[in-house]
Amino acid sequence: MIVVMKQGATQEEIDGVSKRVKEAGLRTSVVTGAERTIVGIIGGAVSPDLGSSLERLPGVTQVLRVSRPYKLASREFHPDDTVVKIGDAYIGGEHPVMVMAGPCSVETEKQVVEVAKAVKAAGAKVLRGGAFKPRTSPYSFRGLKLDGLKLLAKAREETGLPVITEVLDTRDVEVVHKYSDVLQVGARNMQNFNLLDEVGKQHKPVLLKRGLSATIEEWLLAAEYVLAQGNHNVILCERGIRTFETYTRNTLDLSAIPVVRKLSHLPVVSDPSHGTGKWYLVPPMAAASVAAGAHGLIIEVHPNPDQAKSDGAQSLTPENFAYMMEQVRAISKVQGLSRKPLTAAKA
Amino acid sequence: MIVVMKQGATQEEIDGVSKRVKEAGLRTSVVTGAERTIVGIIGGAVSPDLGSSLERLPGVTQVLRVSRPYKLASREFHPDDTVVKIGDAYIGGEHPVMVMAGPCSVETEKQVVEVAKAVKAAGAKVLRGGAFKPRTSPYSFRGLKLDGLKLLAKAREETGLPVITEVLDTRDVEVVHKYSDVLQVGARNMQNFNLLDEVGKQHKPVLLKRGLSATIEEWLLAAEYVLAQGNHNVILCERGIRTFETYTRNTLDLSAIPVVRKLSHLPVVSDPSHGTGKWYLVPPMAAASVAAGAHGLIIEVHPNPDQAKSDGAQSLTPENFAYMMEQVRAISKVQGLSRKPLTAAKA
Amino acid sequence: MIVVMKQGATQEEIDGVSKRVKEAGLRTSVVTGAERTIVGIIGGAVSPDLGSSLERLPGVTQVLRVSRPYKLASREFHPDDTVVKIGDAYIGGEHPVMVMAGPCSVETEKQVVEVAKAVKAAGAKVLRGGAFKPRTSPYSFRGLKLDGLKLLAKAREETGLPVITEVLDTRDVEVVHKYSDVLQVGARNMQNFNLLDEVGKQHKPVLLKRGLSATIEEWLLAAEYVLAQGNHNVILCERGIRTFETYTRNTLDLSAIPVVRKLSHLPVVSDPSHGTGKWYLVPPMAAASVAAGAHGLIIEVHPNPDQAKSDGAQSLTPENFAYMMEQVRAISKVQGLSRKPLTAAKA
Amino acid sequence: MIVVMKQGATQEEIDGVSKRVKEAGLRTSVVTGAERTIVGIIGGAVSPDLGSSLERLPGVTQVLRVSRPYKLASREFHPDDTVVKIGDAYIGGEHPVMVMAGPCSVETEKQVVEVAKAVKAAGAKVLRGGAFKPRTSPYSFRGLKLDGLKLLAKAREETGLPVITEVLDTRDVEVVHKYSDVLQVGARNMQNFNLLDEVGKQHKPVLLKRGLSATIEEWLLAAEYVLAQGNHNVILCERGIRTFETYTRNTLDLSAIPVVRKLSHLPVVSDPSHGTGKWYLVPPMAAASVAAGAHGLIIEVHPNPDQAKSDGAQSLTPENFAYMMEQVRAISKVQGLSRKPLTAAKA
Repeated sequence: MIVVMKQGATQEEIDGVSKRVKEAGLRTSVVTGAERTIVGIIGGAVSPDLGSSLERLPGVTQVLRVSRPYKLASREFHPDDTVVKIGDAYIGGEHPVMVMAGPCSVETEKQVVEVAKAVKAAGAKVLRGGAFKPRTSPYSFRGLKLDGLKLLAKAREETGLPVITEVLDTRDVEVVHKYSDVLQVGARNMQNFNLLDEVGKQHKPVLLKRGLSATIEEWLLAAEYVLAQGNHNVILCERGIRTFETYTRNTLDLSAIPVVRKLSHLPVVSDPSHGTGKWYLVPPMAAASVAAGAHGLIIEVHPNPDQAKSDGAQSLTPENFAYMMEQVRAISKVQGLSRKPLTAAKA
Repeated sequence: MIVVMKQGATQEEIDGVSKRVKEAGLRTSVVTGAERTIVGIIGGAVSPDLGSSLERLPGVTQVLRVSRPYKLASREFHPDDTVVKIGDAYIGGEHPVMVMAGPCSVETEKQVVEVAKAVKAAGAKVLRGGAFKPRTSPYSFRGLKLDGLKLLAKAREETGLPVITEVLDTRDVEVVHKYSDVLQVGARNMQNFNLLDEVGKQHKPVLLKRGLSATIEEWLLAAEYVLAQGNHNVILCERGIRTFETYTRNTLDLSAIPVVRKLSHLPVVSDPSHGTGKWYLVPPMAAASVAAGAHGLIIEVHPNPDQAKSDGAQSLTPENFAYMMEQVRAISKVQGLSRKPLTAAKA
Repeated sequence: MIVVMKQGATQEEIDGVSKRVKEAGLRTSVVTGAERTIVGIIGGAVSPDLGSSLERLPGVTQVLRVSRPYKLASREFHPDDTVVKIGDAYIGGEHPVMVMAGPCSVETEKQVVEVAKAVKAAGAKVLRGGAFKPRTSPYSFRGLKLDGLKLLAKAREETGLPVITEVLDTRDVEVVHKYSDVLQVGARNMQNFNLLDEVGKQHKPVLLKRGLSATIEEWLLAAEYVLAQGNHNVILCERGIRTFETYTRNTLDLSAIPVVRKLSHLPVVSDPSHGTGKWYLVPPMAAASVAAGAHGLIIEVHPNPDQAKSDGAQSLTPENFAYMMEQVRAISKVQGLSRKPLTAAKA
Repeated sequence: MIVVMKQGATQEEIDGVSKRVKEAGLRTSVVTGAERTIVGIIGGAVSPDLGSSLERLPGVTQVLRVSRPYKLASREFHPDDTVVKIGDAYIGGEHPVMVMAGPCSVETEKQVVEVAKAVKAAGAKVLRGGAFKPRTSPYSFRGLKLDGLKLLAKAREETGLPVITEVLDTRDVEVVHKYSDVLQVGARNMQNFNLLDEVGKQHKPVLLKRGLSATIEEWLLAAEYVLAQGNHNVILCERGIRTFETYTRNTLDLSAIPVVRKLSHLPVVSDPSHGTGKWYLVPPMAAASVAAGAHGLIIEVHPNPDQAKSDGAQSLTPENFAYMMEQVRAISKVQGLSRKPLTAAKA
């Protein structure tokens, strides 16, 4: 951490900073520049809370952080790619792009089994489906809950596809863990820290969606919560951030994919269904996600999207999903290139 | 809800929309414009999920909503201001500005009692203090939890000030309800819908912070969750939204205050401490909040901000808090005006 | 345009709207819904200024627009893809991805000629280079101006590559038109309407970058300015929007590419150099752009990026550019698919 | 400027940074921390372009700036408040809040003279009015241009009020300078650097609006352009930034007011008309602006807003403007407090 002093800060003010740093058990190194003095903090990790305190000392104009605040999630700490096993399939590293697909909400046995068969036939490796649904309005359909979990288990039985579903509440972690193969933490819960603790305490893989207004750093810190509890099977999921643009439901931030691959060893997938909110944007953005280096995709598919209980506008029909898969496979094959963009290129 | 057809949409496509609307038990009214046809849906409330489905029918270009999706929170439904009682004080309507103040985190008995006395002396009516702390990093101080709640109760005993503290987890609603007078739902949990349900089921007042990326409409829908469970004592709290500006911690959206007062009957307070992240911006923005029509303020105060375990940079000293209170009182007094800006002015 | 009345609006208020609409030479059609009345405006185009006026009439709660405000730029008006000719190459429609590349700033003859040869060898079809540079600080290098234009012309002579360069000022349109083959309007000038008029009056192609905070609709309206002056050779360029994320310089909004291809007939290119601000993100985001359906790319290349007078951090070396081109070509070849995602897929 | 090295950066990489810094005529000071090494640059001002180059050297992870990039606009450089004279009135420092008011567009002599008299009677000191209008759509009314300037001059003659109007084009600076007392640079032109140069070369005061997506730092750098040309009469104007919230036209960032007053000596005004886009939000946000410390306000007033050629929805009637002025005066009087919040409060 670096403390930047105001122009003309006095020696007493500089000493005040050093004194406060020493109280926290650390040391300082003072650099006197042409315009201002900076005080580097050395001797150990510096908490953001100390930074917040230092910022208000007399003579201080700014406090800059130079270390990444996450460790377990960082590539500096863990250089090799993490690979996560789901059922018999693997995601991460050089493994082929893994596609998870299924309906936004689980509605009926017929619906979920039918979709499961269709997405499996088209090449999906995991079935997604919502049993507990976070809904903006209390008057919307909030999911079949336990019955939905059971229908997912039924579809797994019929198709052999492992299942991913969202958990919304610390009290539901146990039951979701019982029925699901991957626990999803949704965008709205990315900073529900107690929920992160709980999914970190069980050992099934966790798919952690990026919050609508979360920076990449905050997202990796959320992953750090799960990792810090001992669960290393974390998959990150970019699903769009909130910006001023309203034509799309969110703004799918595909640059985050190569950034996350550089900063972290964790696998990262893209969710173009929520990221765009419109079915006809899903195929091109799925293709783009893979070209950008995504390890996987998560896609909403419904047999009759115009009858869906939620998110009809962004769901693909099984036919369009199959079409999208062709494209994804082709891009995925052609370019061993973008899967390793950072080692191949030199400064 | 209005369905906007593409230019040149066929009669068959228009009929397709009407058919789907009828299946949902509603009727349509078709308006043929110069450039395109629109189909109005009449005969009852329309769910957003139906809108999502209609959006993908052939010939449809856009679906526009014309009703507000919240009812209980809306002024159309409930024209008179809601007034909430906390201890012996009232917030909302024409009641004087209510100030809640105290430390970000409860740290020690001495600290919290000292602050409680100081803020009471300066005119605060409620003591705030964090026992369960949501923290971006798992390595930061996460609060004293139950011990913190007990220290708040102790400070209430000593000063008579009622207490507000945050609840983070559905499993903690009971214990927080036991010790606190107001339950705070933080920005990160604004769309933790199960938590909203639970605080809606108990009957102490709820302070609901706006999420960092929440629109005003989503915020009112979150309030609707609490109201729909039968708890009508909801106080809204503007605490800054996330934007591209990084000088301030967040962007305090003060326009939201008169907007919320127009759209809803619920009281609304401002949190300039989190909204700006810098102590020296708190007094001017507290003053501005009151001028904009806030019913109250919630302010972080610490006896030694440069030793605070969290948020030192944005906490006021008791002296500066007292200074801020003078200013707030003066503005509050002068202008019965901005407390009712909307009835006094005419189009 | 649709005028949404408040719940309980009186007949007099509804009549007031109709009266005002009639004064503007248009007619209304009234739809009485379960909760509120809406008034559709028919009989001709409605100006946004009329909408702004109607919004304040008594009893009105909202005014919704149902027509796109641009015509010449819209696919509804002009269904076939526009193809723009630059030198001997074509961009748009089914033409192969066109890559424009070169240094951020023109610095010396040696630099620009060397880069021009290198990017041509790697497959670029147009040389980019800045002579007039918009710079955030008045103390930064603002370009060689006329001398820079002459160096670009020199590089064209040596390589045969047509040249694209930015014009910043209405007073410079003439001289830039004289030396350049394509006139670039930068993000900061996207709503410099007089400049749009002037580049619309000359007949060389115009590359119009999206503004940092421009919606897709505003961007198409800016194109409309150029088209309305009679210049139909407009190329759109997505170059990143401003969001809260600071790891990347901007947030490259790749969803905008398929959206623009759906709404408009104009070709659209992507600028991953400015969109990300970091050289090592350029290859994956160039690949992703092409997979998303971009008709072209514009890329910063410098022989010695660590000596560049501007934007060194985001410039590729010629070697890395050649590497990127391989990837782009491979993706571009494989998928005739994503170049036509919208006609191939069905609702 | 500080160069942050990667963990485990080699001595050779650290030396590479020092070498490149020396080539630029500066020196380095190396601080070896617990986790990583940082290299401080000393010995003179560092250009952002050097920073961009250093960022890509091997072993470098980040480059942090520690000096403010603007000088003439900064309070560090110029501690005393700048006061600008307009006609016989003064704005800035401890001068009373100055209100500028008038129609969005100048439409007719009757309209502009009538408004001028009304706003003068209510206490406005400057008449605003648009002659050259920047419009999102090429089909909207773009102003009366020279005729509008003449009508403004006519209104000045009749009322004695000095006039402010916008200049959009470098070619129009001369004529606007001839007719207007203050030259306004609008939000869309905040980074039209040639226009900033030109208004900096003439000596009438310049009101510089903040761009929709401009950080406070970029805004001050835009002011620096004008100041660097020798024109020291710059007034800053906060008019709302673009965020995800759509209920208001923009998000009026009132925190920017005390921030700018801390960072700069220039006067700062608020434009709640554009900042909110809705007339009924103007009075509360005008009051809030003054409470936050604004030196002035700029307000749209129209005799018949529902007939206005532009921005009817956000214009006040003369009656509502008079009502707003009462409120503003009252707040302005009561609080000598918030006009100097930073010297009165202590850390």
